[in-house]
Amino acid sequence: MARIVMKFGGTSVGDIERIKTVARRVKAEVEAGHEVAVVVSAMSGTTNQLVAWCREADLVHDAREYDTVVASGEQVTVGLLAIALQAIGVPARSWLGWQIPFRTDDAHGRARIEGIEGAELLTRMGRGEVPVVAGFQGVSPTGRITTLGRGGSDTSAVALAAALHADRCDIYTDVDGVYTTDPRIVAKARKLDKITFEEMLEMASLGAKVLQTRSVEMAMKHGVRVQVRSTFSDAPGTLVVDEDEIMEQKLVSGIAYSRDEAKITLVRVPDHPGIAAHVFGPLAQAGVNVDMIVQNVSEDGRATDLTFTVGKADMERALAVLDGARAQIGCERVDADPNVAKVSAIGVGMRSHAGIASQMFDALARKGINIMVISTSEIKISVLVAEEYTELAVRALHAEYGLDAA
Amino acid sequence: MARIVMKFGGTSVGDIERIKTVARRVKAEVEAGHEVAVVVSAMSGTTNQLVAWCREADLVHDAREYDTVVASGEQVTVGLLAIALQAIGVPARSWLGWQIPFRTDDAHGRARIEGIEGAELLTRMGRGEVPVVAGFQGVSPTGRITTLGRGGSDTSAVALAAALHADRCDIYTDVDGVYTTDPRIVAKARKLDKITFEEMLEMASLGAKVLQTRSVEMAMKHGVRVQVRSTFSDAPGTLVVDEDEIMEQKLVSGIAYSRDEAKITLVRVPDHPGIAAHVFGPLAQAGVNVDMIVQNVSEDGRATDLTFTVGKADMERALAVLDGARAQIGCERVDADPNVAKVSAIGVGMRSHAGIASQMFDALARKGINIMVISTSEIKISVLVAEEYTELAVRALHAEYGLDAA
Repeated sequence: MARIVMKFGGTSVGDIERIKTVARRVKAEVEAGHEVAVVVSAMSGTTNQLVAWCREADLVHDAREYDTVVASGEQVTVGLLAIALQAIGVPARSWLGWQIPFRTDDAHGRARIEGIEGAELLTRMGRGEVPVVAGFQGVSPTGRITTLGRGGSDTSAVALAAALHADRCDIYTDVDGVYTTDPRIVAKARKLDKITFEEMLEMASLGAKVLQTRSVEMAMKHGVRVQVRSTFSDAPGTLVVDEDEIMEQKLVSGIAYSRDEAKITLVRVPDHPGIAAHVFGPLAQAGVNVDMIVQNVSEDGRATDLTFTVGKADMERALAVLDGARAQIGCERVDADPNVAKVSAIGVGMRSHAGIASQMFDALARKGINIMVISTSEIKISVLVAEEYTELAVRALHAEYGLDAA
Repeated sequence: MARIVMKFGGTSVGDIERIKTVARRVKAEVEAGHEVAVVVSAMSGTTNQLVAWCREADLVHDAREYDTVVASGEQVTVGLLAIALQAIGVPARSWLGWQIPFRTDDAHGRARIEGIEGAELLTRMGRGEVPVVAGFQGVSPTGRITTLGRGGSDTSAVALAAALHADRCDIYTDVDGVYTTDPRIVAKARKLDKITFEEMLEMASLGAKVLQTRSVEMAMKHGVRVQVRSTFSDAPGTLVVDEDEIMEQKLVSGIAYSRDEAKITLVRVPDHPGIAAHVFGPLAQAGVNVDMIVQNVSEDGRATDLTFTVGKADMERALAVLDGARAQIGCERVDADPNVAKVSAIGVGMRSHAGIASQMFDALARKGINIMVISTSEIKISVLVAEEYTELAVRALHAEYGLDAA
């Protein structure tokens, strides 16, 4: 017997038939003798509609009212799933954020979880009742409804699993696990049985859309074993676990990519201390996240080129900010290129092995792919390449690191 | 300066443009110096969709979960209206049933209001803030969301007006007031400036669809002055008030009709004591409401005919119940006729004037309309006629009692 939190996303509860399918999945776990709590998102499409209405009512709107409106989506699905469970003989009741309570701070629209009262839920689970918990939502210290921000339902599920000391948090989604890379690009991509929290975190932040970064951080912090699996198949998914649970660690576990990048180059920036502050200070103030940064060695000791990446959606804003700071920066020219992609190799095995990076550069060079910027961390190497090379680079690296399925 | 509760129904908040129109109406009252609280329904159509989903999930479903699902509709509109108000410079915030709290019993799906905490709302209204309150919903003693049943938003508004000691409760709807009769039938129908609670109550329960019966009862009990008026025009509506506020009372204030009737006749029922219990006992147990009842004088002292009306939707069920009780009742035959209508004249002036009833029978007789059943109360006379005579009867009575517009 285990204690399990099962989380179902918007497509899994997209209509009543699917909600009934979810109910049957939950029933199977209950009949296997497990204690089960369920977390659900809003029906797919609902949240977008609610957000659109808020914008239509006023482009700049009160985040507290936004949360009240948007949280209604999960209110609908918890009630419907509780009904569907009862209909097939599973005792169940819905729980809204304020009823648990699922306490957060008052940062509406992107609230942080502060604590979850699990005692009542545990008592009921012990009696065989299934709590159906609204994902994405909580309640502020002043009793207003809060939401955790996009993808927050994964975070809700992991936080609930931590509060209930669950043995596992199963995230049901429309893919059947975490792959070595995007199967739409590499036919030979393989589903991983296990992956470490750290690798999953890198994958999530580097473009793999399976789990929200924040939910992985939460799982890592609280040691919650997470399983990513499909709502629509019975196949086991991918377990996200502590490193020591994985006996034989590959050097590279996966290849991620993101087309959501833009490259900006400041040409002939004066090469003196403090210039970086003049560039990145105003960008940070404008809320532009800067990712990879590279500065060439200056040839003449007077001026150099400074290149960095920002999110594609932020490029125009970044250019406007830089234009305003032009006088202080004193560069010759600003070049921008939205047609770039970031390709990354990820693996905790890199920590103890040298040569992974040079192997990457060699492999890309053999395919004639020019590397624009490089950035590395303990467990990942990312390169920026021209966007048109994305698929070629991903496939080359997937093969290079021995990830192709036999 | 007055304190006003403004209530807007589903069509008035049916889309964002209409919500903005509502916001402007609220702003006008605020700018006129009034303290204002607003009660809103769900967008038109939303509640029906949510109810349909509950039924699809399970035909017989947990009323607590139903309430959780269905109450989400008002959660959306309060948030959106608060945003729309803020957008035009009116300080506003949304209030859900559990936040006020708006306390009810735990009769889910048809909860009774037990009490409303008005202090916090009053403090904020005193500062110029507009509370936007979710109609139709409350919170049970155990902290579950409850709903008041169909049309409950009118009742919410009146109850809130009572709790806030408001000077007036304005019910905004798609008609501009209460008419002497249905203007679709009688072109010369006139809008009433004022009507008494008692008359409004009779009109509501006799088929006029302007206000929910329950909200009128609540208004009468707490002495809340209610105004029915149009969301889409600035014309003053109809005030529903205490009798003593109306100086010169007409004998008849309005003619109502309902096609939602069916007539059942038990032919040759044994004429002995206790027979009525055998008929109406089983019907009451089956939840069938019986309205008008007439029993002929028995000609031979042994058997008589017993005629009564039920709601059209209940007719088949009533017949099944009577079939089961046939042996005990011992009548010769049961006849049923769904093609009937009830036409009523209503007016508090009747109390002090004789002759209103005979005037009615004369007027109908002159048009050749046969009266099947008669029932009277202190302030109304109702007759059952063949359905095809409905319009003719309504027009005849409207003219007869001097209600036609000049």
